[in-house]
Amino acid sequence: MIQTDILIIGAGPTGLFTVFEAGLLKLRCHIIDALPQPGGQLAELYPKKPIFDIPGFPSVDAGVLVDNLMEQIKQFEPGFTLNEVAQTIEKQEDGSFIVTTNKGTQHQTKAIAIAGGLGSFEPRKPDLENLAQFEEKGIEYFVRDPELFSDKKIIIAGGGDSALDWSIFLADVASEVTLIHRRNEFRGALDSVEKLQELKNQGKVNLITPAEVRALHGDERLTGITIEKDGEFQTLETDYLIPLFGLSPKLGPIADWGLEIEKNAIKVNNALDYQTNVDGIYAIGDINTYPGKLKLILCGFHEATMAVQSIYQRLNPGKKFILKYTTVSGVDGFDGSRKEAEKAVVKSID
Amino acid sequence: MIQTDILIIGAGPTGLFTVFEAGLLKLRCHIIDALPQPGGQLAELYPKKPIFDIPGFPSVDAGVLVDNLMEQIKQFEPGFTLNEVAQTIEKQEDGSFIVTTNKGTQHQTKAIAIAGGLGSFEPRKPDLENLAQFEEKGIEYFVRDPELFSDKKIIIAGGGDSALDWSIFLADVASEVTLIHRRNEFRGALDSVEKLQELKNQGKVNLITPAEVRALHGDERLTGITIEKDGEFQTLETDYLIPLFGLSPKLGPIADWGLEIEKNAIKVNNALDYQTNVDGIYAIGDINTYPGKLKLILCGFHEATMAVQSIYQRLNPGKKFILKYTTVSGVDGFDGSRKEAEKAVVKSID
Ligand SMILES: Cc1cc2nc3c(=O)[nH]c(=O)nc-3n(C[C@H](O)[C@H](O)[C@H](O)COP(=O)(O)OP(=O)(O)OC[C@H]3O[C@@H](n4cnc5c(N)ncnc54)[C@H](O)[C@@H]3O)c2cc1C
Ligand SMILES: Cc1cc2nc3c(=O)[nH]c(=O)nc-3n(C[C@H](O)[C@H](O)[C@H](O)COP(=O)(O)OP(=O)(O)OC[C@H]3O[C@@H](n4cnc5c(N)ncnc54)[C@H](O)[C@@H]3O)c2cc1C
Repeated sequence: MIQTDILIIGAGPTGLFTVFEAGLLKLRCHIIDALPQPGGQLAELYPKKPIFDIPGFPSVDAGVLVDNLMEQIKQFEPGFTLNEVAQTIEKQEDGSFIVTTNKGTQHQTKAIAIAGGLGSFEPRKPDLENLAQFEEKGIEYFVRDPELFSDKKIIIAGGGDSALDWSIFLADVASEVTLIHRRNEFRGALDSVEKLQELKNQGKVNLITPAEVRALHGDERLTGITIEKDGEFQTLETDYLIPLFGLSPKLGPIADWGLEIEKNAIKVNNALDYQTNVDGIYAIGDINTYPGKLKLILCGFHEATMAVQSIYQRLNPGKKFILKYTTVSGVDGFDGSRKEAEKAVVKSID
Repeated sequence: MIQTDILIIGAGPTGLFTVFEAGLLKLRCHIIDALPQPGGQLAELYPKKPIFDIPGFPSVDAGVLVDNLMEQIKQFEPGFTLNEVAQTIEKQEDGSFIVTTNKGTQHQTKAIAIAGGLGSFEPRKPDLENLAQFEEKGIEYFVRDPELFSDKKIIIAGGGDSALDWSIFLADVASEVTLIHRRNEFRGALDSVEKLQELKNQGKVNLITPAEVRALHGDERLTGITIEKDGEFQTLETDYLIPLFGLSPKLGPIADWGLEIEKNAIKVNNALDYQTNVDGIYAIGDINTYPGKLKLILCGFHEATMAVQSIYQRLNPGKKFILKYTTVSGVDGFDGSRKEAEKAVVKSID
């Protein structure tokens, strides 16, 4: 069982920054996320797009902001349970919680910060009869580890940024890449579309448009698919099918945790500390709602900071908290590192 | 009379970021600050020191953060009344406010955001009989415009960072620089102390320690001072005396505006929008207080954003506000500029 002071559900910007504020107060964090990488919406939906309203950044690409946050928290050594959905929360007699994921991983914690954004991101799946049978047996909705596809035949289905970018990336990894899209037109960054055109011209990516996947074949594992193009059916051998039809967030299990839900979000007491109706469970960032709530990254940062202060009080009852400026006190990492401002010297001049 | 949608009192990080959020909602801002430069505590107290808890910056020097914020808001063309203290607020019949500074500058506004930090920064003054008589007539507490001292004889008094840094800087500007300090030891960044030692060795800065200023001389303007060193008195000719004994923040006039004050801060309704007990006056950043309040820069950013939303509703009653992501909608400056993410293309590959 994984043990932690604060269990954070959601590795978006809010969840990540929570680790930093907790670390300043000597609290350790562990983060669960349904996605294979940290960053939430920023990493999954718009990593290469600029954000203009992060204070202090006239412009910052979403992916860069995530990298910066990862760098900022690394000395506090957060644990990660990625690729898993937090499924159940059980309150224990001693006031702690046990959180179990869809894959059975268990986490014990003193306090929970739900930073679940719009919910856990789940892939939009094609409507195919025996789809479930081949999931993780030839069908992958994410490229978690590109090495998996090394020297394999793969078929990617989709017409957006992910389909373009992964076709381009995997052209150098897989033995054969086929991209199928139900329209002729792709929608993405101009240079991605141009790069794909080039790979197609060089014979490094096979392009089949407009076409759709109609059936899956195989016994234990996927071995081929049938596609329909211009009313004709055709069967293609393949090791993998990667449908990249986008992700949609699902509140999912969060709705079953006994929390007060309003407009698909968790109601919190913003006058105080963003705690939910369940003592010890906080909700911060896009996932919460209160009068005037704004679903903005910068608001999540503030909410995380306030919630962590409250958690500190919970875990250290009666201990008086003294706010310390990082500039003045420096930052002591759990890894033994120390960041600090250069000290002033007191020195005479002769 | 200066006219603006939102009058901001205080050009610290909170006040500066307010301009950005207001601009996104097409509201124009004007800022008043007692100091000669924007940046509040960051610019005045620790410009060269790193801050570690600004989300997305593993480390950022305070002065750099201020520069970034100035860059981030520039397309919204904020007006500035610097070097002046907001003294009085009068509510008009039509619901607007007139804010007048200690120098008589008048501002008319529809809403006020007080982002006054710990209060307006005022220089600690030496205890000398006829000090007031020579203020701005030879005595300066800030180096607003270094050109003022070009080819003049100046005496700086003090032993901290400002005294060191300005002695070094003005050594190249003034005809003669004398630095007086009541102790032998200076307190500051190591390289500043070393640089000063070097300038002293080269005869570019005269150093008199331990010594204190005891009297001021002159008629219309300051012409000289008397100092005491080792029990002996000595008179020095000078064009300027610059006492740099630090600044102390004074709530000052803010206390007289009919606002509810608690622990030297303005009480606000944080459950909603950081409005004070006076309709139309908001308090954000270090200057406000509410249960759980943290005097942190990142909290000021959130509070500014929430307050601006509320001000928008006030000024546009009944108009439904739709939150726009900067990444999706871009940022349209009042100067005609536009920042935006690169558009996706929709393009077929042949
Ligand atoms: C195209 C686009 C542009 C945007 N532009 C801006 C902008 O310019 N400025 C701005 O401030 N905001 C912008 N936003 C909004 C911004 O991305 C969100 O406010 C931000 O991502 C919220 O962060 P978060 O950490 O609260 O949640 P998220 O980023 O949504 O992260 C939540 C994470 O929690 C995980 N999760 C949820 N439930 C579970 C569970 N049960 N188990 C495991 N994991 C779970 C999800 O998988 C997800 O990774 C934009 C959003 C989009 C889509
Ligand atoms: C040494 C030091 C280190 C710090 N380190 C950190 C850190 O690591 N992290 C962190 O988050 N915070 C830190 N802080 C605190 C941080 O600086 C403040 O939270 C921040 O400056 C508050 O910003 P603000 O805009 O609300 O107010 P301020 O920065 O105080 O600015 C307020 C401005 O309002 C002006 N003003 C006030 N009243 C009037 C008036 N009547 N008329 C005209 N002007 C007026 C003042 O002159 C001032 O310029 C530190 C502070 C210090 C001193």
